[in-house]
Amino acid sequence: MTSRIATWIGVDWGTSNFRAWVFDADNTVLDVVITDQGMGTLAPSEFEPTLVAAIGPYLSNTPIPVLCCGMVGARQGWIEAAYSKVPCAPLDADTALRVSASDPRIQPFILPGLKQDNPADVMRGEETQIAGFLAKTPKFDGVICLPGTHTKWVHISAGEIVSFRTFMTGEMFALLSTKSVLRHSVADKGWDDIGFENAVADAMSHPQLVASKLFGLRAQDLVRGLSGASAKSQLSGMLIGAELAGSKPYWLGQNIVIIGHPELTSLYAAALRVQDVPAEMTSGETMTLEGLKSAYNILIKKTQ
Amino acid sequence: MTSRIATWIGVDWGTSNFRAWVFDADNTVLDVVITDQGMGTLAPSEFEPTLVAAIGPYLSNTPIPVLCCGMVGARQGWIEAAYSKVPCAPLDADTALRVSASDPRIQPFILPGLKQDNPADVMRGEETQIAGFLAKTPKFDGVICLPGTHTKWVHISAGEIVSFRTFMTGEMFALLSTKSVLRHSVADKGWDDIGFENAVADAMSHPQLVASKLFGLRAQDLVRGLSGASAKSQLSGMLIGAELAGSKPYWLGQNIVIIGHPELTSLYAAALRVQDVPAEMTSGETMTLEGLKSAYNILIKKTQ
Repeated sequence: MTSRIATWIGVDWGTSNFRAWVFDADNTVLDVVITDQGMGTLAPSEFEPTLVAAIGPYLSNTPIPVLCCGMVGARQGWIEAAYSKVPCAPLDADTALRVSASDPRIQPFILPGLKQDNPADVMRGEETQIAGFLAKTPKFDGVICLPGTHTKWVHISAGEIVSFRTFMTGEMFALLSTKSVLRHSVADKGWDDIGFENAVADAMSHPQLVASKLFGLRAQDLVRGLSGASAKSQLSGMLIGAELAGSKPYWLGQNIVIIGHPELTSLYAAALRVQDVPAEMTSGETMTLEGLKSAYNILIKKTQ
Repeated sequence: MTSRIATWIGVDWGTSNFRAWVFDADNTVLDVVITDQGMGTLAPSEFEPTLVAAIGPYLSNTPIPVLCCGMVGARQGWIEAAYSKVPCAPLDADTALRVSASDPRIQPFILPGLKQDNPADVMRGEETQIAGFLAKTPKFDGVICLPGTHTKWVHISAGEIVSFRTFMTGEMFALLSTKSVLRHSVADKGWDDIGFENAVADAMSHPQLVASKLFGLRAQDLVRGLSGASAKSQLSGMLIGAELAGSKPYWLGQNIVIIGHPELTSLYAAALRVQDVPAEMTSGETMTLEGLKSAYNILIKKTQ
């Protein structure tokens, strides 16, 4: 708590996590509330009480705007916020969905995700990070990579998202390393840079062999005692390498910015370096904050 | 029970299942015992009592030979049966591992799996099916595909396994359809032949896009209500298509036999048909039985 006055609240409400930032009128962060009450754990009727409980100390008789981004707007979320369709700007004053709350102290909005018709694709949450990045770098023309459970490659031109493509790389890594036969051979800790880099290069050249080389990690362990750290690095390298082969039409010859958790952005930057491709990295959390601020500024202007 | 005399017992002891066939002196099956006490559920000390309990009615004062194949011989199994190294025949009289049991009524043997040094690969159980097939078709020259959790492509020449290659296709299908975000979009039942065939052809041409097209199934569901049956068929087609791209050096221009569960062999045959490649199909269970019989005949000759 602080003596400065909470003016609005920005929420990143994903599948597994809830993160709320309390801002004053100068967009300075007064407090952060983090819980594991992600959208995946809640029924539609539970969203409002969960939000009110989390930000309770900042509620008063003056209704406070609460801007939410992420999976909270999915069909299984609080209320479905219909996708905007690319090509379009990542944020649009007219598309923020006003949620009618029963608690008069909150005035919640959900920022919609984006969809693409062909090939069919969707995002929820990344558009806010992209908006944050473009707010800081409005003239950016190039490609943004947002690595995560479902990594996005996004083509940006003239302040708009032209097209994007999702790869299930992160989710496949999680499943293969913890739920498949590879869990016996893949370590939690340790890292092998050379193993990672070789696996990236190899999967880029032979993506059709990934399902076989995955099993090869188990076989190498059984036949000649491959280390768990190397298996982990090679698994990660194979999956990212195959993704780079598939996303090449996005990144080849482009300015590339990678937005996300530092551990992931540095992994993708290292994989691109194997191809002699440079990339800038920036923090996903910072870009979410910037995107929420930018959405608030747009909304304020709209209502003034 | 029967009045004919149990002479030996063959066991297919995999990760999740135990299957024992009781044979008389003419290799006629007198009884079958099936349980879910697979190798994955047992500690090393539990294998002997599990076996004795399952085949108890057939034990007498004359020790009965029990030939076991499959994961029972893995490092985490009853006792590790060291891999034979390809190129070699699928079964070898000298490599069956005699297990010293504390119960004098059984005389157990474990048939070893096979390993390959480069690329590193392993199999346990499939070698017995291959031996069964070669016992029936000794002059076969070509490629055997054994679809399953870890599908094997095996090059056979002059009665020997020359080389083989494993793909994690089955396990990836299981994980993606039941544990990933695709579980919301993939149905248990129903089938879409055209969706399967198109996905096979597409993944063969663009295996580097599989991780993206997988997410595309979820997106197609969200954006335009793709049916769960079609999503399932396309998921299966994508993974098998990518496997066919990777295993092409095995099957191109070869005689192809697919050994396995009828549901799987017909799926692989349909995928190969998309490439105008014909393939024979044969039952995995029958081939396991034939392989165990063939192993017994070899052992008997050896001990006579």
